[in-house]
Amino acid sequence: MPDEGILLVVSGFSGAGKGTITKAICSRYDNYALSISATTRKPRVGEVEGEHYFFRSKEEFEEMIRNDALIEYACYEGNYYGTPKDYVMKKLSEGCDVILEIEVQGAQKVHEKFPDTPMVFVTAPTAEILAGRLRGRGTENEEQIRGRLRRATEEAEFMGDYDYILINDTVDETVESLHDIFRVEHMKVKRNSRFMDEMKRGLGHLS
Amino acid sequence: MPDEGILLVVSGFSGAGKGTITKAICSRYDNYALSISATTRKPRVGEVEGEHYFFRSKEEFEEMIRNDALIEYACYEGNYYGTPKDYVMKKLSEGCDVILEIEVQGAQKVHEKFPDTPMVFVTAPTAEILAGRLRGRGTENEEQIRGRLRRATEEAEFMGDYDYILINDTVDETVESLHDIFRVEHMKVKRNSRFMDEMKRGLGHLS
Repeated sequence: MPDEGILLVVSGFSGAGKGTITKAICSRYDNYALSISATTRKPRVGEVEGEHYFFRSKEEFEEMIRNDALIEYACYEGNYYGTPKDYVMKKLSEGCDVILEIEVQGAQKVHEKFPDTPMVFVTAPTAEILAGRLRGRGTENEEQIRGRLRRATEEAEFMGDYDYILINDTVDETVESLHDIFRVEHMKVKRNSRFMDEMKRGLGHLS
Repeated sequence: MPDEGILLVVSGFSGAGKGTITKAICSRYDNYALSISATTRKPRVGEVEGEHYFFRSKEEFEEMIRNDALIEYACYEGNYYGTPKDYVMKKLSEGCDVILEIEVQGAQKVHEKFPDTPMVFVTAPTAEILAGRLRGRGTENEEQIRGRLRRATEEAEFMGDYDYILINDTVDETVESLHDIFRVEHMKVKRNSRFMDEMKRGLGHLS
């Protein structure tokens, strides 16, 4: 049986690059899986069930809520979004490290339910660089960009609740830093009780 | 001014290889320094003041104790051994990450005084491998080796008080793992208050 994987939360400012980083780490290394959200909103063109989302009816989603089958959930603009527990647990039990990309409020709920979950906040090196990246996308007008920066100002107040600040300067380096966080989390004493028990037993036999 | 370095404690079983690893990481990377102990015991042949130890008289050492100039100290077989605070603080303020290689009781004292100090416990992959390494040195008789294994059995009870378990399989990998621990510790939220303040200020100006 493989060692159990680690569930890790990634949040961050819009434009900080968290989506790019979490996708890149999964394609660079075999042992990572991205958590997949369930939603009641309709699939958009190109969205694949079980890849982008688990698409569920309102009734199915509310049954998941009643059965405590979601790690966290929220309602935006009339649609439910949530993290199904069973997919995450299956991946963890297979030995995968699972990344849960989620906004700050959802992250807090996960932390309440699973206090051992490492929490990573992704940010650009400076506010100016963040603004530059948002403008560089060319997909939003100036008012929308200012809205995102206002939202970032609010989110910044939550940075202190996270465990790690991941400063995304270049994607390659940031992917390696996230990989390091997982590697180092696996060395935490609390995740090595079985090893420590075996070591104590072995020493007891030899001495 | 460089960012302040991290003080990190390394303990571990005799024969686990902690001396080899801490020396190797200092020669592989520029940013590390080993803490140097002060002692009242006489220098042995080849031991250099300020490199192997700071050699002090009993009176000088007891003055350091009175002046709270030691991070921790202990008395073994009639001689004092301790960690002078000023050398460690000087290196930290220069931006060096400082490694304090110390046994389990000393480590506990450091942790009480500096609770933010990451604590790393170095171990061989199994008790059998540890015993094999002790015998492989060829410097001790079987009774001395059994004594070391009994001591390891006692030390094993303290593993759970550490933050990280560093399993030394090969030196090269273990050095990289220790380097990763430092890198990841630098990403901890509590070590990035200045960055977070600057980010909040910057976002406030832009939004």
